[in-house]
Amino acid sequence: MDFVMDCLGVNENGNLSIGGADVTELAKQYGTPLYIMDEEEIRRNCRIYADAMKKYYDGNGLVLYASKAFSCKYMYKIALEEGLGVDTVSGGEIYTALSAGFPAEKIYFHGNNKTWDELEFAIKNDIGCIVIDNSDEVDRIEEIAEEYGKKVKAMFRVSPGVDAHTHDFIKTGQIDSKFGAAIETGDALKLIKYTATKKNINIVGIHCHIGSQIFELSPFCETAEIMLSFMEKIKSETGIEIKELNLGGGFGIKYTEKDKPIDFDKFIEAVSKVVKEKAEEKGLECPFILMEPGRSVVASAGLTVYEVGTVKRIENVRNYVCVDGGMCDNPRFILYGAEYDAVLPERPTAKRCEKVTVAGKCCESGDVLIEDIMMPEIKKGDLLAVLATGAYNYSMSSNYNRIPRPPVVMVKDGESKIVIKRETYEDIIKNDIL
Amino acid sequence: MDFVMDCLGVNENGNLSIGGADVTELAKQYGTPLYIMDEEEIRRNCRIYADAMKKYYDGNGLVLYASKAFSCKYMYKIALEEGLGVDTVSGGEIYTALSAGFPAEKIYFHGNNKTWDELEFAIKNDIGCIVIDNSDEVDRIEEIAEEYGKKVKAMFRVSPGVDAHTHDFIKTGQIDSKFGAAIETGDALKLIKYTATKKNINIVGIHCHIGSQIFELSPFCETAEIMLSFMEKIKSETGIEIKELNLGGGFGIKYTEKDKPIDFDKFIEAVSKVVKEKAEEKGLECPFILMEPGRSVVASAGLTVYEVGTVKRIENVRNYVCVDGGMCDNPRFILYGAEYDAVLPERPTAKRCEKVTVAGKCCESGDVLIEDIMMPEIKKGDLLAVLATGAYNYSMSSNYNRIPRPPVVMVKDGESKIVIKRETYEDIIKNDIL
Repeated sequence: MDFVMDCLGVNENGNLSIGGADVTELAKQYGTPLYIMDEEEIRRNCRIYADAMKKYYDGNGLVLYASKAFSCKYMYKIALEEGLGVDTVSGGEIYTALSAGFPAEKIYFHGNNKTWDELEFAIKNDIGCIVIDNSDEVDRIEEIAEEYGKKVKAMFRVSPGVDAHTHDFIKTGQIDSKFGAAIETGDALKLIKYTATKKNINIVGIHCHIGSQIFELSPFCETAEIMLSFMEKIKSETGIEIKELNLGGGFGIKYTEKDKPIDFDKFIEAVSKVVKEKAEEKGLECPFILMEPGRSVVASAGLTVYEVGTVKRIENVRNYVCVDGGMCDNPRFILYGAEYDAVLPERPTAKRCEKVTVAGKCCESGDVLIEDIMMPEIKKGDLLAVLATGAYNYSMSSNYNRIPRPPVVMVKDGESKIVIKRETYEDIIKNDIL
Repeated sequence: MDFVMDCLGVNENGNLSIGGADVTELAKQYGTPLYIMDEEEIRRNCRIYADAMKKYYDGNGLVLYASKAFSCKYMYKIALEEGLGVDTVSGGEIYTALSAGFPAEKIYFHGNNKTWDELEFAIKNDIGCIVIDNSDEVDRIEEIAEEYGKKVKAMFRVSPGVDAHTHDFIKTGQIDSKFGAAIETGDALKLIKYTATKKNINIVGIHCHIGSQIFELSPFCETAEIMLSFMEKIKSETGIEIKELNLGGGFGIKYTEKDKPIDFDKFIEAVSKVVKEKAEEKGLECPFILMEPGRSVVASAGLTVYEVGTVKRIENVRNYVCVDGGMCDNPRFILYGAEYDAVLPERPTAKRCEKVTVAGKCCESGDVLIEDIMMPEIKKGDLLAVLATGAYNYSMSSNYNRIPRPPVVMVKDGESKIVIKRETYEDIIKNDIL
């Protein structure tokens, strides 16, 4: 039986298993809705990237886990143990990483509009590197660094102008972007020159990110070329030697059978080759490279188990399977029309004979998880697992309709433990003042 | 100066004011981002509906505040003091209402997939009325009611089949819906007949909801007619007299100058007339009517104040104004392409001379609040208020990027107080287990 997630199987009871644990048993133990993640799968993905960095680029680089995909204390612990650094995008993510004992020097701080408080928090705590977005930020960093007597390591978010042929909302490498400064317009070089006038900022690198859920190598190779050329230009125009090249993330994963992802190490292999060749060609030192997988580390390690509350068969119209979660724990369908696969944990191999729409319980018509999917016949009380929900599900969850967020359970060698507790009603009203 | 929110003005300092308080001062006092709501405006909206119910329907009805629009303890207190009941859609909303001392008998409980736990919680606490969605729910209610020795008052969510010409995602009155049972298909009558066989359920009414952000009276009148005809049919086929008619909500509000809302009391006036006429025509008792405004009670009472962190002018492309919040506190643009107006609290009457896009700080290209709006020239450090955010902003907010949710401050007669506290980083990691 092939599933879109490699860490799934069918156990001796004929039930769906994840990382050796029975999904049905876990649902009984922890209740539904429930996020379940396979720790070994996450670690395996971390290692694929880390190993590729050694193999194809002599270890002259660092893989940063892009933690916005799934951020919690335990996840930073895994990243640390697997030798990764982390990419954070807010004070809250930095706070979580530090709370988990993550070493500050391996934390990179991104964002198009970092606040004063966030920058102060990052600088005070000696965060490894700030990825500068704009000149206002440069001013803030310089002032805070001066106040705290720090020298801040920084790289620049630049737009290489590459179109990664992806969804509009997640296309970020182009000129029309709230992120960074474009190479093409000259704004990126201007930003670097401006920063070079500041005495408390140590310019080490440049960074780009061309999009998300990308299934081709060529945009990355093209981008690497553009970035090397830009490094050459920076050197010739300013004398600054760029030592770190951060090529971002965006490596596509398999949500449904339609998705054909590339082996993750191929990205690093391909990029390494281009960087080495181009550096030599341009007489530059081979830069330390960074890559930032997020989705591809965690998405395929996680699923969400729901209980079906009712099945509404509207003759000649549609069959609605209503589950006990929805857009509050997974808003990706209503946000992007994202597609997912689903399996019945108690009948994982049953024949898919009926077209259904899996809807949530939120009071909103658009609250759908999967539209028009072939499933085995489903009845109330069945469990239903939506697959590949390890990324951008928990992290994007809300309390819409004042529904508590589900817990995250991590499975390893058949054993499970809670890494994020289920919210209670008490949690939900804790900040309300009468 | 005309604003899309009636409760706004310009004070003696030339600053934007809401409910008599200076928005700039509030931002200084409480920090940004900040939700501010005018309590008097909320109360005024409540009264418009409540008064119309008295004036046009002899008070033979109840206005239910649809609390999913904005739910917190303080809001239930306001609704109670203004003589409204509430429409809730989850155990969490019921829990919040009860925690605020809201009387159980004035709470209506909606939802297409109420869980066993939620129904048990509602029935145990003698919630006023359950709006039954489907036959599986009927079975659950009957079993729980039996266990607790209760008789449950219930109405039915039915689809009248009216198309309210609105956004696909918020169109709910049609047959292809996860909500309720359609009249047209016969499913609704079947559900009522089935429920009539249960001894612990007391059938009192029928309910419908035809959509959201509706700017016409006619769909409501048409719906009222259909519902009265259905009441007649129920009576003739089952002998059951429907005593309560709930016509739902969906009354459109003014987000931008393009929106032309109808005076809210007109909905009740129009519907009252149809109900009275049709009841007489069909020889039915005039039903007790319920209406469920949510958005129209709170949206126009609230705004969100942000601080501008940077303005990115990309020549011949776009001007990005980046604020210190985003899709985490207002996901309605990225979800629905919703349009908003904005004002600079420190220069509310300044000439709008530049086209900008207001973007958030989340690490996502789609994180935009307003696309292409004419604004006065904006510089970093400016405050920017997005208007009419009182509904579906706080309630849909998330911790995406681990960004803490802003507080909600309520203003009354120039005085302010916090009704929902700002989240802290500590709040965000409180359920994380290492």
